[in-house]
Amino acid sequence: MYRSHNCGQLRMSDVGQTVTLSGWLQTSRDFGGMTFIDMRDRYGITQIVFNMEDNEELCARARKLGREDVIQITGLVRERSNKNPNRPTGDIEIEVQDLSILNESKVPPFTIEDETDGGDDLRMKYRYLDIRRTPVRNNLIFRSKLAIETRKYLDGQDFIEVETPVLIKSTPEGARDFVVPSRMNPGQFYALPQSPQTFKQILMVAGMDRYFQIVKCFRDEDLRADRQPEFTQIDCEMSFVTRDEVLATFEGLTKYLFKTLKNIDLPDFPLMSYDDAIRLYGSDKPDTRFDMHFVELNDVAQGKGFSVFDNAELVVGINATGQAEKYSNKDIKKLTEWMQRPQIGAKGLVYVKVEAGGTFKSSVGKFFEEAALQTWADKMGAKEGDMMLILSGEAEKTRKQLNELRLEMGQRMGLMDPAVYKPLWVVDFPLLEWDEESERFHAMHHPFTSPKKEDQERMLNGDHETMKALRADAYDLVINGVEIGGGSIRIHDRALQSKNFDLLGFTKEEAEEQFGFLLGAFEYGAPPHGGIAFGFDRLCAVMNGVNSIRDFIAFPKNNQGRDMMIDAPSPIADEQYDELYLKGTYSPETKG
Amino acid sequence: MYRSHNCGQLRMSDVGQTVTLSGWLQTSRDFGGMTFIDMRDRYGITQIVFNMEDNEELCARARKLGREDVIQITGLVRERSNKNPNRPTGDIEIEVQDLSILNESKVPPFTIEDETDGGDDLRMKYRYLDIRRTPVRNNLIFRSKLAIETRKYLDGQDFIEVETPVLIKSTPEGARDFVVPSRMNPGQFYALPQSPQTFKQILMVAGMDRYFQIVKCFRDEDLRADRQPEFTQIDCEMSFVTRDEVLATFEGLTKYLFKTLKNIDLPDFPLMSYDDAIRLYGSDKPDTRFDMHFVELNDVAQGKGFSVFDNAELVVGINATGQAEKYSNKDIKKLTEWMQRPQIGAKGLVYVKVEAGGTFKSSVGKFFEEAALQTWADKMGAKEGDMMLILSGEAEKTRKQLNELRLEMGQRMGLMDPAVYKPLWVVDFPLLEWDEESERFHAMHHPFTSPKKEDQERMLNGDHETMKALRADAYDLVINGVEIGGGSIRIHDRALQSKNFDLLGFTKEEAEEQFGFLLGAFEYGAPPHGGIAFGFDRLCAVMNGVNSIRDFIAFPKNNQGRDMMIDAPSPIADEQYDELYLKGTYSPETKG
Repeated sequence: MYRSHNCGQLRMSDVGQTVTLSGWLQTSRDFGGMTFIDMRDRYGITQIVFNMEDNEELCARARKLGREDVIQITGLVRERSNKNPNRPTGDIEIEVQDLSILNESKVPPFTIEDETDGGDDLRMKYRYLDIRRTPVRNNLIFRSKLAIETRKYLDGQDFIEVETPVLIKSTPEGARDFVVPSRMNPGQFYALPQSPQTFKQILMVAGMDRYFQIVKCFRDEDLRADRQPEFTQIDCEMSFVTRDEVLATFEGLTKYLFKTLKNIDLPDFPLMSYDDAIRLYGSDKPDTRFDMHFVELNDVAQGKGFSVFDNAELVVGINATGQAEKYSNKDIKKLTEWMQRPQIGAKGLVYVKVEAGGTFKSSVGKFFEEAALQTWADKMGAKEGDMMLILSGEAEKTRKQLNELRLEMGQRMGLMDPAVYKPLWVVDFPLLEWDEESERFHAMHHPFTSPKKEDQERMLNGDHETMKALRADAYDLVINGVEIGGGSIRIHDRALQSKNFDLLGFTKEEAEEQFGFLLGAFEYGAPPHGGIAFGFDRLCAVMNGVNSIRDFIAFPKNNQGRDMMIDAPSPIADEQYDELYLKGTYSPETKG
Repeated sequence: MYRSHNCGQLRMSDVGQTVTLSGWLQTSRDFGGMTFIDMRDRYGITQIVFNMEDNEELCARARKLGREDVIQITGLVRERSNKNPNRPTGDIEIEVQDLSILNESKVPPFTIEDETDGGDDLRMKYRYLDIRRTPVRNNLIFRSKLAIETRKYLDGQDFIEVETPVLIKSTPEGARDFVVPSRMNPGQFYALPQSPQTFKQILMVAGMDRYFQIVKCFRDEDLRADRQPEFTQIDCEMSFVTRDEVLATFEGLTKYLFKTLKNIDLPDFPLMSYDDAIRLYGSDKPDTRFDMHFVELNDVAQGKGFSVFDNAELVVGINATGQAEKYSNKDIKKLTEWMQRPQIGAKGLVYVKVEAGGTFKSSVGKFFEEAALQTWADKMGAKEGDMMLILSGEAEKTRKQLNELRLEMGQRMGLMDPAVYKPLWVVDFPLLEWDEESERFHAMHHPFTSPKKEDQERMLNGDHETMKALRADAYDLVINGVEIGGGSIRIHDRALQSKNFDLLGFTKEEAEEQFGFLLGAFEYGAPPHGGIAFGFDRLCAVMNGVNSIRDFIAFPKNNQGRDMMIDAPSPIADEQYDELYLKGTYSPETKG
């Protein structure tokens, strides 16, 4: 037996007991004839004490121990004279009677403390040391708890967890698949699923009624800090439901998770149409922790002779309350330059400060009279001390730029409190996006999303322009400007699904080849159904006010898709090529 | 709203209510002016009634409905005159007032009943119809519950579920890996994990203390009925534990699962050494629902002039109690032929029947006197009416053959009651197996398994013969002759691990290349640790007395590794080859 208790367990009530602990040496301090060691395991830290007077040999051995050595001690629990109120075990210490070294440690390449001196690459290579750090370990424990509570809730709602296959079929849609050559079927490949979408729909046709799965998905995309080639979804599907029933179920799940894991009571989730989200926030995932919504000014700002505005499709602004005095001309110049960086690409930035006595100070003051500026202020609700910030240009681009500006101002003005959570549902997305370049439609959500009921007839019989206006019965859950999940009511009718494939540019043969099994399934009594998927890594991050999902993945890959610790991917042996009937690979330089 | 209740919900207490149900048409019966339809969903079946007199149009429409049509009805719950006590909803029926057809169904290719007329291939192709059948659906629901209860138990024992990566590194050991070409790292491949073995050990080095995961694993092997290229494990690891602590924890899990899901109280799990299992049952996974253990007869059967026995390494038998009269000469001849089939390969089968008055009837009666046969009977505890069955030859082969015979006799004698569960731990496996052909050692368990503590010193310093005798600190959980899980205490010391790789024929470079990260981790304070993995699919099957794991997998693959429903694997596009820097594949015919 390596231990009678763990390192986070002992309290005053245990004083007088002889106990055995095992764990890592966190820190060691020698004071005169005494040596104090903090012993650590997953559960906590316990102070152990060696005394030269009591046992010189033992104390001498203890003094030779180094950081991260694994030790086992037996000793007597006693009350500490110098208690540590910041530690649950801080009232006691252990007077060591016996010490074994279970394993020695070399000096770690970075310190195992909450704040470490290790850079990203080093920490990824020695991930086993990084995870010993309390914040990283706590993230993984949070993730485990979040999964358990998710399952508890969904199980309580009659959802069945069904494992769908990982070795599936490659589809040309959307992002790139990872593929897996088949040894038993030469020349053929499996693909790893980007999501279990078709399988969960099949499960609805199969009568499973309510399905969920916490499941790994795969996407061979170029990676950013917040993307991983493998990621985890809470994947769900329900039969015989309307949109509002799906939303109620997953609003319930989200509230339950926040309450259980963070003790936060979320407010009810408002609905916002996609059109409103774009019009008011320039984004389909608005951060609604603060308002500062867009106000369109075309009617009051155009036709006054300022050609930049007159020639713009859209003139639109936000009101930064109380910011007038905080921004010198220099500050505004800097902000303008920030907006003009290629990442945002604004041509310029117009400001109007509301000053004392109903006067204005503005970069466009010479084009507009005070009375004109007053109409802007009225529209935007700007009061003395406020600063209106206005952009103009092509509508879609301008809204995107103003979205960036709004978020930046929200950040600067301290309106994005990480302790505040503002969820909402964005609904009524367009069904199809017209791509001018390829002259074809793309599915805004995915090819299985149903148009809203009132649009189904028009979809089957309408003309090209009608298609652009179709609304999808789709929804996204957004919290604090982050898309946590999305889903839709699905098509369950073969004719409608065929029409959708047709609009998306699939030939009949391609549709049959790729999705024949689903089209076939729709002919054998497919129920109305819909579902949703939450990004599980992202949910972990958002619930902890963190941007990067990597912090919540035990063994993440870097931006080149490499696992730095195990050094994967790696070359394979010639025999493996042979067994898989692969002719070989070539380097990009020789690519024809 | 598609329904106010599901099809398994309504009871007498609901009589008088107006309800809305949605579901599938299971069966339809016309009686004079009435039409009775059984409406089905996941939750049950409810009878709905149409009456020509009440509403001719509605009833006429109902009569046109076909099997598996998806319908929605609204109507009044009323008491049935002709109750069905076999159905929870059997006391009521619904007098339909409104009917919508939500989706029509073609005639299914097989009947959606508990017993179906669909063959395996057809059922796999139309898996969405197969899952509508109650036994298949119940299997999937059982699996979901088993996962939930497993998690509940392990969570209660402080285990943390950590997701380990699916895209890892190919290793040449053991079974074949599935590999995944990397687009971002040309010429390099990921591999899919055969198990998260090294990651879970890394998590112990990382101080996670108790890890589990219900996780997909992958093995590119030639498939049998009870193998799948992707399968699921309950994968666990614990730090600072001895073997007996691991066994106690997972004996606890197993008992909990049987109690919770089957209401069965399992007895305590006895330990049996690998040597005893082989000596007494000729198998390292003995079915101990019945005894009929092996009795070695060399000392009493050899040296009497029967050359077959005299020249054999081993003479060994079992006693089939009460079978003497049941086996005619013809029966014994048939049994002998069964043993002589190439699958078993026995040369012959000796029987000795114990007859009335202490006399014997035996195929070797002319070689042995009654007194000699009596010594056999004494050793085997054979009484009047019993039949001893004896094999001889090379020890290992003979034991395997007698294992087959024992299981066959157990089956014939009705001793393998599917309602009885007999678990045991098989322990003390050999650490290494010497392979004469390749002249090298193989790991009996895997290369990370620790020798027993008392063997560690000998392993580091012993000679070749010593290595053959090393015992592993490994254990298998066996229930009713099926291996449910296995594990071991791991090596946590770099020197011992290096020695093991050395014995297994790895060069220093190969060991470093493949497992350098683990060897490295062992230098930074690796705790003593051990773990286990349960075959989750297999556990589902055994708990339900079923042989094939396929019955518990929603979308299994066939023996060629194909998913018959989605028709995967399949060819990929030329652009996909290009993107992955693959030169192409070739057909086996042209293989050099």
